[in-house]
Amino acid sequence: MRSLAAAARDASRALAVAPTEKKDRALAEMAKALRRRARAILEANAEDLALARREGKNEAFLDRLLLDKKRLETTAQAVEAVRSLPDPVGEVVDSWRRPNGLRVQKVRLPLGVVLMIYESRPNVTSEAAALCLKSGNAVILRGGKESRRSNRAIATALAFGLSAAGIPEQAVQLVPTVEHEAMLELLSLEGLVDLCIPRGGEGLIRFVAENARVPVVKHYKGVCHVYVHQSADLAMAEEIILNAKAQRPGVCNAAECLLVDRKVSETFLPRAGRRLSAAKVELRGCPETVVILRRAKVPVRPALPGDFGHEFLDLVLAVRVVRDIGQALEHIARYGSAHTEAIVTNELSAADRFGREVTASAVMVNASTRFNDGGELGLGAEIGISTSRLHAFGPMGLRELTAQKYLVHGDGQVR
Amino acid sequence: MRSLAAAARDASRALAVAPTEKKDRALAEMAKALRRRARAILEANAEDLALARREGKNEAFLDRLLLDKKRLETTAQAVEAVRSLPDPVGEVVDSWRRPNGLRVQKVRLPLGVVLMIYESRPNVTSEAAALCLKSGNAVILRGGKESRRSNRAIATALAFGLSAAGIPEQAVQLVPTVEHEAMLELLSLEGLVDLCIPRGGEGLIRFVAENARVPVVKHYKGVCHVYVHQSADLAMAEEIILNAKAQRPGVCNAAECLLVDRKVSETFLPRAGRRLSAAKVELRGCPETVVILRRAKVPVRPALPGDFGHEFLDLVLAVRVVRDIGQALEHIARYGSAHTEAIVTNELSAADRFGREVTASAVMVNASTRFNDGGELGLGAEIGISTSRLHAFGPMGLRELTAQKYLVHGDGQVR
Repeated sequence: MRSLAAAARDASRALAVAPTEKKDRALAEMAKALRRRARAILEANAEDLALARREGKNEAFLDRLLLDKKRLETTAQAVEAVRSLPDPVGEVVDSWRRPNGLRVQKVRLPLGVVLMIYESRPNVTSEAAALCLKSGNAVILRGGKESRRSNRAIATALAFGLSAAGIPEQAVQLVPTVEHEAMLELLSLEGLVDLCIPRGGEGLIRFVAENARVPVVKHYKGVCHVYVHQSADLAMAEEIILNAKAQRPGVCNAAECLLVDRKVSETFLPRAGRRLSAAKVELRGCPETVVILRRAKVPVRPALPGDFGHEFLDLVLAVRVVRDIGQALEHIARYGSAHTEAIVTNELSAADRFGREVTASAVMVNASTRFNDGGELGLGAEIGISTSRLHAFGPMGLRELTAQKYLVHGDGQVR
Repeated sequence: MRSLAAAARDASRALAVAPTEKKDRALAEMAKALRRRARAILEANAEDLALARREGKNEAFLDRLLLDKKRLETTAQAVEAVRSLPDPVGEVVDSWRRPNGLRVQKVRLPLGVVLMIYESRPNVTSEAAALCLKSGNAVILRGGKESRRSNRAIATALAFGLSAAGIPEQAVQLVPTVEHEAMLELLSLEGLVDLCIPRGGEGLIRFVAENARVPVVKHYKGVCHVYVHQSADLAMAEEIILNAKAQRPGVCNAAECLLVDRKVSETFLPRAGRRLSAAKVELRGCPETVVILRRAKVPVRPALPGDFGHEFLDLVLAVRVVRDIGQALEHIARYGSAHTEAIVTNELSAADRFGREVTASAVMVNASTRFNDGGELGLGAEIGISTSRLHAFGPMGLRELTAQKYLVHGDGQVR
């Protein structure tokens, strides 16, 4: 593993100074190679699938593992989409002049070597490779063991693309073994690996965080709230909570809890409750919520102590009536996971206060929590989401895969 | 330690939303209290000094530990200087609009709780407290054990300042014990401590990095090079290497190695060598350097294998003649420590290439390496220097003590 990482380090040096057009050529060739080698990739994927099915993996797992012609085309298109994004390397982020005449610039440079650890989702292989390549980083890919044949076939295609553009193949390396020890060794290679990005369930991320000596971007759970302020447009609030909860309940930016100001709870909860129930959402309410909803004949269960702060990842929603914005903020500070928090309000001061006081990677005012996503926020694509504040907070796009150095121009200044 | 950190976490919540004027009032009161309690602080420092002297600490150590009236006044002024810097919290770093009408902003927020671990330099206590306070972070201070009385007296003054401004005293806490176990426990408090900044020698930083579960800003050694390109203004190059090496040889942004293009080595080395020798700098040269300098009767020793890449922190300079900029870049990639690298040149393409290809927290073109410093670069003050690329690279000022969240304004957008 050490020599693999050292090779990545060497490749990262070449990549760091590669001109944009060379990286773009590689990305174009990678997309081409994915299409040209579709048959080999789909065959390898079929083998992975057969084995996973024999091992009794559930449907959701198999669906994440599955590649078909259409998905492979989407994968190739994703590589092309990264190609069309602006190159962050060399971007001058800020600049100023010092009294002694020195001109100071902050300029983006790549991080170096990124270690990507992910579950059995073969599309992550090419996506992560594309994002790292465009941002000038070498990447070491360690995917789930059930996808190893698919990953190998994809990595072979990617390597063709790289060498067609004259970029060292070591810029994108798939870990050749799925042994646990190999992963542990990679996680210990301080000085060779600059950043580890784990992508998957909370268990995987905790495992990586606990065993890593290299820096890790942590993406823990998303316990996201939608808070309906007393001044809210209630029709808007209804659409937002429905979307936030039910459009795709299994993802981290889905809402898990609805907070409603007491002043509007009698009006809002019955109508929103009916819509949510019709969308098959199970409601678990605080005592006040239960009284209001039962009176309105909307199905509801009393919330258990563990329901607040819980990431259901399912069609279940905790609901609480709050006194005012102060209590809503307290609730979020206590139960939120710093992922995404939303307020629906028409009052400027409430929007400002919520935006200022909530600590979360994204704070939404009058918009669904579901927009906390690299694509939706305009980053083009994301390699992961950080729920800790170091280095990056929230979706990580190309820029978040870079660092900044000071570039100082003088004409002989000394101290 | 856990309850101390939990108290810091609570205080950080209050501090995160404290208005600038409240923080500024606290800083003003802290400076005042440092002056008002000067006698108690200097007495405590005298006790620390007496004990350290009895323990046989050397003069450099005692000098770093010493506070006198003048130094204490400088310390109070440093707190006031931080007060006058702009508040980074709430700064909108970037903003854009999405096709669906969402307005996206990136807004600075504090990191949370910062753990500062440092050696027996009591001035760091108030400096770190001021920088963390202004950037909205709670800080836990763990200074060297030889300075514990001084630190306690300073922390008492700071607490007066905080409470005079109505900020919880737990925003600035001195660890009440210098036990090793307590420090180890603090370093393990993932989730309560957001960032650890060690400040001191390489040994301290390695110890912290190896024992921390919380994120650490690493500041390893500074092996800085000055490269004299064939097109350099040789008089300027002479001033720059003299300043970079001899103005203050014991600091991390001092130069440790001079690289000279072969085309100008015969002209440059004798004159620069004479100046450096006159400044008592010992020269250790590659074989070519030795020949040139001996011919010019400038004292020089042959460099030993370990002299390149070594941080002398002393009046010693390694010298090497290189073929061209390519060889200089190779040398720096191999032996540099990503701290500060300088080129002296009149050729635009050489300056551009050096600026682009060198991976270092600061790259200087025609200026001394000594400018890689928060104050000199215009950050106002620095809490540390990062030589790793995660989160921050180079001097860390107030902005580097913040993270960024997405603040998104819509008018009912859903996905």
